Amino acid sequence: MLNKNYLSLKEAINILLNSISFELLPFEIIPLEKAYNRITYEDIHAPEDLPGFKRSTVDGFAVRSQDTFGAKETMPAYLTIKNNISMGTAPDFSLGPGEAAGIGTGGMLPEGADAVIPIEHVNIVSPHLIEVLKPIGPGENVIFEDEDIKKGELIIPKGHRLKPQDIGGLAGLGFTQIKVVKKPVIAIILTGDEIIPHTEKATPGKVRDINSFTLAGLINELDGIPLKMGIVKDNYEEIKAIAEKAYELANIILIIGGTSAGIKDMTANIINELGKPGILFHGVSIKPGKPIIAGICNNKPVFGLPGHPVAVYLCFELFVKPVINKMLGLIDKIYKNKIKAKLTRSISSQAGRTDFIRVYLKEKDGEIWATPLLSKSGLIMSLIKANGILCIPEDLLGFEENEIVEVEIL
Amino acid sequence: MLNKNYLSLKEAINILLNSISFELLPFEIIPLEKAYNRITYEDIHAPEDLPGFKRSTVDGFAVRSQDTFGAKETMPAYLTIKNNISMGTAPDFSLGPGEAAGIGTGGMLPEGADAVIPIEHVNIVSPHLIEVLKPIGPGENVIFEDEDIKKGELIIPKGHRLKPQDIGGLAGLGFTQIKVVKKPVIAIILTGDEIIPHTEKATPGKVRDINSFTLAGLINELDGIPLKMGIVKDNYEEIKAIAEKAYELANIILIIGGTSAGIKDMTANIINELGKPGILFHGVSIKPGKPIIAGICNNKPVFGLPGHPVAVYLCFELFVKPVINKMLGLIDKIYKNKIKAKLTRSISSQAGRTDFIRVYLKEKDGEIWATPLLSKSGLIMSLIKANGILCIPEDLLGFEENEIVEVEIL
Repeated sequence: MLNKNYLSLKEAINILLNSISFELLPFEIIPLEKAYNRITYEDIHAPEDLPGFKRSTVDGFAVRSQDTFGAKETMPAYLTIKNNISMGTAPDFSLGPGEAAGIGTGGMLPEGADAVIPIEHVNIVSPHLIEVLKPIGPGENVIFEDEDIKKGELIIPKGHRLKPQDIGGLAGLGFTQIKVVKKPVIAIILTGDEIIPHTEKATPGKVRDINSFTLAGLINELDGIPLKMGIVKDNYEEIKAIAEKAYELANIILIIGGTSAGIKDMTANIINELGKPGILFHGVSIKPGKPIIAGICNNKPVFGLPGHPVAVYLCFELFVKPVINKMLGLIDKIYKNKIKAKLTRSISSQAGRTDFIRVYLKEKDGEIWATPLLSKSGLIMSLIKANGILCIPEDLLGFEENEIVEVEIL
Repeated sequence: MLNKNYLSLKEAINILLNSISFELLPFEIIPLEKAYNRITYEDIHAPEDLPGFKRSTVDGFAVRSQDTFGAKETMPAYLTIKNNISMGTAPDFSLGPGEAAGIGTGGMLPEGADAVIPIEHVNIVSPHLIEVLKPIGPGENVIFEDEDIKKGELIIPKGHRLKPQDIGGLAGLGFTQIKVVKKPVIAIILTGDEIIPHTEKATPGKVRDINSFTLAGLINELDGIPLKMGIVKDNYEEIKAIAEKAYELANIILIIGGTSAGIKDMTANIINELGKPGILFHGVSIKPGKPIIAGICNNKPVFGLPGHPVAVYLCFELFVKPVINKMLGLIDKIYKNKIKAKLTRSISSQAGRTDFIRVYLKEKDGEIWATPLLSKSGLIMSLIKANGILCIPEDLLGFEENEIVEVEIL
């Protein structure tokens, strides 16, 4: 029953990703506070030691550790308080034998000191004298000059998506700007005589644009720039002209299929005319999304996506997203957000085909249940109602009612 | 060994969330294309039927189904092609007995037709005549006027975070603007004599601001507006003045602790003076983050967060984020992104305390391994290097080497 006419999902993705061998996107240098979620263009090394000075990790007294050796409650060591260290200042004195200095967490140790006794291990006899009740070893309760980060150390590798805490760390190191991969521009061309803008009144026979809104959101989430090229009639010359314009402006081109007969071949021919090598594959054994077309035209990926809202969503996730991430040079391992759930009803698939079923996840009596949202492929509501996607791999014929399955969370 | 001085994590979160009984944030009406990720302020109902007309789901011929009853390959039904339906137009004719009309996927059925025969089940004898080789039932390959969405139907509930596909569906229904919950403004006050802006050169004793950058990113991810109030010295009157200003401008106030002795009490006193009821709790049995302070001042949540970068991150995730989500009225169940991994070394904790350990996740020989990043709490690098967080619950004393644990992915 294996469908020999179409590539399997895995074959298709391999062909696609292996074809993207061209240069990465260019870089740009942007202020640090704009760099959240952006991808680093180069390895980032520490420009200096951090913290850069000996720092206390507790509230207490900076001491020379040898002065405390042998101290115990019954026989404390007595130390003179030479000074108290203000936060944020470098002490202008050094500790001699038998001397201590008051210090707060984060404070800088004076010269001569090599440890900090916590306030709890000390009796303050007078403003000038403490009893140390416990010995302390060299380096205890101290962060050394280069203990957090050593000058020159690799802090963040090339190809990493910058998280809030990364930006925090870079601020701590004094970075004010960052070299990141430029955001890819992704052109969206809608085709179809029946498609009208969302601002227009729907008259019989017409349907409003759904797909450019779904796609723009998905592109934004990857930090791409969606470029809406408008709605084009099902006309070869018109689609070709707008595809050529998009080719000039964008890094990736998405042609969203009109659903009328013959249009799929139009898109295929246009991709072949747009540049070499042209089409990589036309049709993949998945449902929905079977008629997908992928091509490379002079180093620019061009996709023909089937027009059903659910197919557009899935084809973007399966094919376009990995291409964007590869162009960005992303090296981070992406762990998909999956959850185990019990099926409320059985669902079947066809051997040799990978099916993606929208499901609705709901907790009931401490268990998570997944209800398949089965509907004709043109319906929008199933995509809005779904909060999960269940994949039936090509070597399975489906899942049984009450079976525990792994659902990707939307 | 249970620490009686501090609330457990669960107790603290319960007290905090139960104290937030005040009104939701106000609404604002914004263009649809700006509404990605925003929270709906009210239930959204369908303003019209969708698709609004009888639509074909295949390429083929619109027919009266009764004309095909009994048709088979050896005895086809013959139908006259009355017309072909252009995509995006309402047919200006109706089908009589024995008549058919060419139609594409998504095309509108003419009056009289109640089914569409796929092109594969038909022989086209001439431009005017087809042979139907299989019978078809009423409604087959048709989406009815209100089959996707019925006018008045609840499409998206109040308190839902709008996903790309939701915006797509709303565009399809002709929405051009949406009533959403206004973004909460979250003030960030940094205290500490040792803190300098990230643009300044670090001199001995000083450290640059890390926390306002981490927090701004985390706030943006929740669609809040971070309001940086600058760096204040460890001085009661100065901190109080800036807290009062923040109280006028923001919905939530974060005072990031200086780490010097005594400052924690300053923050506590200021929260108590800012409004009623004041402090809810001061100190929670977690590590890191133990000294956290949470309060409500005249319906505005105010937090005192310990200043270590890792503690700030965790306290935001554990305490501030649920408060923001509750103020937004978010009803979506949040499934955390977790993964099972094997520990490369054993780690211990203290009974009665919830520990959060930064880990580095790495795949090796088909297994995912988690390496605990143990370091003094003031170090930044452990937060940058980590790609996961492992929680040791209060009733456990730790995990063993090679034990399989559940790690939250960062």
